[in-house]
Amino acid sequence: MAAKKLRIGLVGYGFMGRVHSNAFHQASHYFDSEYEPELVAVCGRDKANAEVHAERWGFSSVETDWRKLVERDDIDLIDIAAPNDMHHDIAIAAAEAGKMIMCEKPLGRNAQESQEMVDAVEKTGVANMVWYNYRRIPAVTLAKQIIDEGKLGKIFHYRAKFLQDWTIADDLPQGGAGLWRLDAGVAGSGVTGDLLAHCIDTAIWLNGPIDNVSGVTETFIKERMHTLTGNVEPVGIDDASLFLARFHNGSLATFEATRYARGHKALYTLEINGENASIMWDLHDLHRLEYFDHSDEGRVRGWRSIHVTDGDQPYMDKWWVPGLSIGYESSFVHQFADFLTGLEGDQPAMPTFRDALATDLVTDAVLKSAQTGQWESAGA
Amino acid sequence: MAAKKLRIGLVGYGFMGRVHSNAFHQASHYFDSEYEPELVAVCGRDKANAEVHAERWGFSSVETDWRKLVERDDIDLIDIAAPNDMHHDIAIAAAEAGKMIMCEKPLGRNAQESQEMVDAVEKTGVANMVWYNYRRIPAVTLAKQIIDEGKLGKIFHYRAKFLQDWTIADDLPQGGAGLWRLDAGVAGSGVTGDLLAHCIDTAIWLNGPIDNVSGVTETFIKERMHTLTGNVEPVGIDDASLFLARFHNGSLATFEATRYARGHKALYTLEINGENASIMWDLHDLHRLEYFDHSDEGRVRGWRSIHVTDGDQPYMDKWWVPGLSIGYESSFVHQFADFLTGLEGDQPAMPTFRDALATDLVTDAVLKSAQTGQWESAGA
Amino acid sequence: MAAKKLRIGLVGYGFMGRVHSNAFHQASHYFDSEYEPELVAVCGRDKANAEVHAERWGFSSVETDWRKLVERDDIDLIDIAAPNDMHHDIAIAAAEAGKMIMCEKPLGRNAQESQEMVDAVEKTGVANMVWYNYRRIPAVTLAKQIIDEGKLGKIFHYRAKFLQDWTIADDLPQGGAGLWRLDAGVAGSGVTGDLLAHCIDTAIWLNGPIDNVSGVTETFIKERMHTLTGNVEPVGIDDASLFLARFHNGSLATFEATRYARGHKALYTLEINGENASIMWDLHDLHRLEYFDHSDEGRVRGWRSIHVTDGDQPYMDKWWVPGLSIGYESSFVHQFADFLTGLEGDQPAMPTFRDALATDLVTDAVLKSAQTGQWESAGA
Amino acid sequence: MAAKKLRIGLVGYGFMGRVHSNAFHQASHYFDSEYEPELVAVCGRDKANAEVHAERWGFSSVETDWRKLVERDDIDLIDIAAPNDMHHDIAIAAAEAGKMIMCEKPLGRNAQESQEMVDAVEKTGVANMVWYNYRRIPAVTLAKQIIDEGKLGKIFHYRAKFLQDWTIADDLPQGGAGLWRLDAGVAGSGVTGDLLAHCIDTAIWLNGPIDNVSGVTETFIKERMHTLTGNVEPVGIDDASLFLARFHNGSLATFEATRYARGHKALYTLEINGENASIMWDLHDLHRLEYFDHSDEGRVRGWRSIHVTDGDQPYMDKWWVPGLSIGYESSFVHQFADFLTGLEGDQPAMPTFRDALATDLVTDAVLKSAQTGQWESAGA
Repeated sequence: MAAKKLRIGLVGYGFMGRVHSNAFHQASHYFDSEYEPELVAVCGRDKANAEVHAERWGFSSVETDWRKLVERDDIDLIDIAAPNDMHHDIAIAAAEAGKMIMCEKPLGRNAQESQEMVDAVEKTGVANMVWYNYRRIPAVTLAKQIIDEGKLGKIFHYRAKFLQDWTIADDLPQGGAGLWRLDAGVAGSGVTGDLLAHCIDTAIWLNGPIDNVSGVTETFIKERMHTLTGNVEPVGIDDASLFLARFHNGSLATFEATRYARGHKALYTLEINGENASIMWDLHDLHRLEYFDHSDEGRVRGWRSIHVTDGDQPYMDKWWVPGLSIGYESSFVHQFADFLTGLEGDQPAMPTFRDALATDLVTDAVLKSAQTGQWESAGA
Repeated sequence: MAAKKLRIGLVGYGFMGRVHSNAFHQASHYFDSEYEPELVAVCGRDKANAEVHAERWGFSSVETDWRKLVERDDIDLIDIAAPNDMHHDIAIAAAEAGKMIMCEKPLGRNAQESQEMVDAVEKTGVANMVWYNYRRIPAVTLAKQIIDEGKLGKIFHYRAKFLQDWTIADDLPQGGAGLWRLDAGVAGSGVTGDLLAHCIDTAIWLNGPIDNVSGVTETFIKERMHTLTGNVEPVGIDDASLFLARFHNGSLATFEATRYARGHKALYTLEINGENASIMWDLHDLHRLEYFDHSDEGRVRGWRSIHVTDGDQPYMDKWWVPGLSIGYESSFVHQFADFLTGLEGDQPAMPTFRDALATDLVTDAVLKSAQTGQWESAGA
Repeated sequence: MAAKKLRIGLVGYGFMGRVHSNAFHQASHYFDSEYEPELVAVCGRDKANAEVHAERWGFSSVETDWRKLVERDDIDLIDIAAPNDMHHDIAIAAAEAGKMIMCEKPLGRNAQESQEMVDAVEKTGVANMVWYNYRRIPAVTLAKQIIDEGKLGKIFHYRAKFLQDWTIADDLPQGGAGLWRLDAGVAGSGVTGDLLAHCIDTAIWLNGPIDNVSGVTETFIKERMHTLTGNVEPVGIDDASLFLARFHNGSLATFEATRYARGHKALYTLEINGENASIMWDLHDLHRLEYFDHSDEGRVRGWRSIHVTDGDQPYMDKWWVPGLSIGYESSFVHQFADFLTGLEGDQPAMPTFRDALATDLVTDAVLKSAQTGQWESAGA
Repeated sequence: MAAKKLRIGLVGYGFMGRVHSNAFHQASHYFDSEYEPELVAVCGRDKANAEVHAERWGFSSVETDWRKLVERDDIDLIDIAAPNDMHHDIAIAAAEAGKMIMCEKPLGRNAQESQEMVDAVEKTGVANMVWYNYRRIPAVTLAKQIIDEGKLGKIFHYRAKFLQDWTIADDLPQGGAGLWRLDAGVAGSGVTGDLLAHCIDTAIWLNGPIDNVSGVTETFIKERMHTLTGNVEPVGIDDASLFLARFHNGSLATFEATRYARGHKALYTLEINGENASIMWDLHDLHRLEYFDHSDEGRVRGWRSIHVTDGDQPYMDKWWVPGLSIGYESSFVHQFADFLTGLEGDQPAMPTFRDALATDLVTDAVLKSAQTGQWESAGA
């Protein structure tokens, strides 16, 4: 069945490194492909940690310098699960080395970096994809189907938020393993690139391009100890980021992300209101899609809570039986399976680097607007 | 508009006396009728309390002996909101005096009392009704419409429960004002007559007659101080009552009521599963009906949460605008308005005394089964 | 108990006229007061309709010219439930005639009108109140208590929206009875004054003043037939209005209102996130308050769904027993009862005209920002 | 890390065969153990299907006769994922061959078979476990912790149900692959052994032994075509099974299972009410535990919706970050990891064959009661 080897080199053994490794293992258990992934090497700065990851997940070797990984002849695909500040250089080097590339989101730390990454992969023609995994939650994919079928009609409103509460404590340090998301130099931005990027990617996919935005950001805690220097240093990231948007299709939107919303762990919610129907989804109950269809008979009309676990719903014919839900990590399994399918045919799996660049243009516009106090164009 | 006076004498100024008084005032604000209620007298053993009730709710006079109330010529209708042990005698006297009668549920303390009450009103031909108010919650009435239209198809299952937690403390006394529901002599039974009676009335209305039952009851706290005697006395009521049932239509059911379900204040829930559709409702969110229609397209099928506040839903054209819900007390307003409509036409408002007797036959069978350990017939 | 008469003249017999009339009747059934409301007159342009309202709700007389109503010696209080364009003139005339005034929200069609109304009542010293009824939903009042007790700690975020869907159809006309909310000349603005005003009033009450805003509005359907002229005319109102805000306490907010959110009838939701706790509420399930308290033990921490029907919760000792909820209209009953209490003491019931002016300053700033594309100050 | 090989032979490649295979792969990715599972052989009657399973899941060989599998020297553990009628013989043969045994639930088709299986494993002393996986859903394990810590106090009530709707169509055949659950000869019973067994296992684990039961069963569709014979044959299974129970601790319970509850796919729900606190859980939202703690301050008391995804909650330190939920299949991963831990220490993983026998005694009593119409003892 799986005749072609796909030799993978992974950069990063953190949270994302684990999720990707899971996907490489699980895809073939649930999905058919011509390709068989082979876990050739995992690369990380700490050799001991890399070896632990290799042992647990079955990578055959370890590297501590990503440049060596990229140069290896026995690797077809570089998967970038390292912090944001490494995406650009690794991707460009990998492209130049003719490797396929899968990159964690956001693509670059800003649209400039992303543009250069797009240029590199398009110049060399290597297969490429960005891990905006939420598109592959079955309920979200079902939302896409429903919208594409025209069930919603003309769209009036979109609203999304991504709420967390893990950085409220002011004695939480910044920087280093697990905390690089608070270090602006590494992360590029705060919740804008980390959380809003997810919201924007899904929004563009579901509702088309965003024309312009008006944003505001805030850094609630201005100084934090830096784990790498041991000093209290200014915090450069945005703790919260909110924006209004006009989509190209005429709909209006609110977007919000924060790590200061007490009570919410990872509450990514989205809603879209059309002339004839509406849809809501949230990550905390990720296997449900809420759907309102105005064409239902009036007296018995109501929001339908769709439990997305049936075989006629996206991806679910590959898993269990109706009523039994799957987890967060499955979205990565689906994305990797789709990537393999993309390799087999004419249509590469989305989102490509170019698709992901569109999100970075919006996040850049949001951050700019927060500084200028003006509406800013999110167009290319 | 309202040409005919309907002169009312109310027995009882407690919780139910207040709810009924509210209904007498509010019906004419929202519903049209030939009849205009006139609050002639309120009767209660404590004259001072009766006077307070009369002042607040606009009753013109007070009585302390219900026999005098029943004999008064200036009263057309006796409304019984007194404890259960008084229903039988007042109702029969009122019937013999030719008064219309509205009686709180349960009708009698047992089916024997209820039968005699039915005989009395049927012999004298006076209008009569029992306050099983939950039939008139708009969401429950909508459920009835849906079932009557055949949307559910053949019925397989019914389940209902009524969960409270207000008697868990063992220092709660029994007997006297507000606590007569714990005194078996006054109440007749515990949760069987108090809570299950509601569940059974709705069930028979929605799903037809119950053939037989297997029940179990428990009195968790065996002795409580009695407020009237000052002594610790055995508790005679059932604290919890559960039963299995077979309906005449072949469906199976579970019923449960308790005052020992920590966390639930008045959680009356019902669910009915048919071949083609199902319905759920609960009193804590009384303005919602959950409805599942298997004929919806598979991929987007789900339980619909119907917010019952629209003008095309039962009773709601009389109230506000879509999205604005009404309260518990409105169910009594609806019932009284329906009673007045019943007076104007050929079809008396339901449930009549005879309708309510059917419930008492079931509660008697449940209590009997709990003693015999056998299935018992709930038929007449 | 109720020795002092409070003679009321009501202007308007529409939706709000009915809700206010209900409050005048119900307040004395549930709340004690020195004052006894007397329904002296209802005023409306259509005499027949005014007479129907008077008959149903027990007003002793009718007027068709509000100027005559204001001049009557037998009236102590003018209640304004007429369309927005009449608020200003009636209120000022009533103030000059020495009448107490209760006015539907928004106070004026813009802050200029509102300022003049404030000046008038403050000059003459008459009691005054604006019907921002949502403050008196028990769950919302409980939220206020929780916040005032400091349970939330420092506030980071506020978000509110008010979503409806009743104007999506493009053949819905504008203007005239029931449709004046679509006529900019009468309403002043669209959803900004109608729906956002509610959100802003509650927000300021719960979270303090708003410093500045960035807004956007949209009129999705540009022309509608006008019922008064019979011609298709431009639509002057905003169909949707969204804004970002900075509160004076440093918290950030999103606000949104629309009548184009398919599936939502009157979904007013609010959420406030503090350092230690968070609160959510929505109008569709108005008797519930969602509350997250970070001081709960970690493993068993979660959003608490508080069913606000207990005697120790605001206003609920006056109604039924735990578990039994009350309706939308009760918020007006509470507000009127609080107004009467305000008359008896030193502290007038909130919100006064001056309190309500603060909301109009924000709505004006939102509309201005939507035109300028700039952040605008919402301060006085 | 994983020095000891654990050589596994699996019988069955259906739904359960897939779930178990997933567990064998995933356990070592998330949990530490001295043991390393090795997938030596999969056995099934259809060789081609067995080979497909072996290829997909990495089993080194296939067998078509389970007797050969049991006799193989290169296998340490037999995992039984075959239909119910095969459990007894395979387990006893495996025990006699000195193999460890993991067996799908229910253990036997009735308590007699189960007793013999218990005798076999206890006689030979082989490690044994039954796959009652729901104990290992993190939210359910958390419920167990809460109860064991005494947070609930004295228990008054337990209620559980398992509702499905997949057999409502009368043209669904019985027997053969995927449909053996409708064939009484193979399955032993219908929903009693299939669904109620799950409910009972969890109930006994959480709330202790069940003393006696009163049950009722129904077969709604009396005849179905049999896929193996091609003939319409009587249906021998119970389509629905309901029972009342008394636990040894004095609490009362209702249990219900059916495949005729339209709208429910696999809705296993459980609730337990104690003096001080209550707990609810359901399989459709398996990552949430609802918890009510009466010791919370009254005004802000409510059911807590605990999103069980934090590192201090059972098993969740092994997976992702707070807010990201895991799927149904993870419960099997946890159970296998626990089994391995049990091998390393003194305390075998639960439930053992003996633990599982307790459930079969209850299901036998339920079926007997449904025939006798009497309460039946569920004791040994």
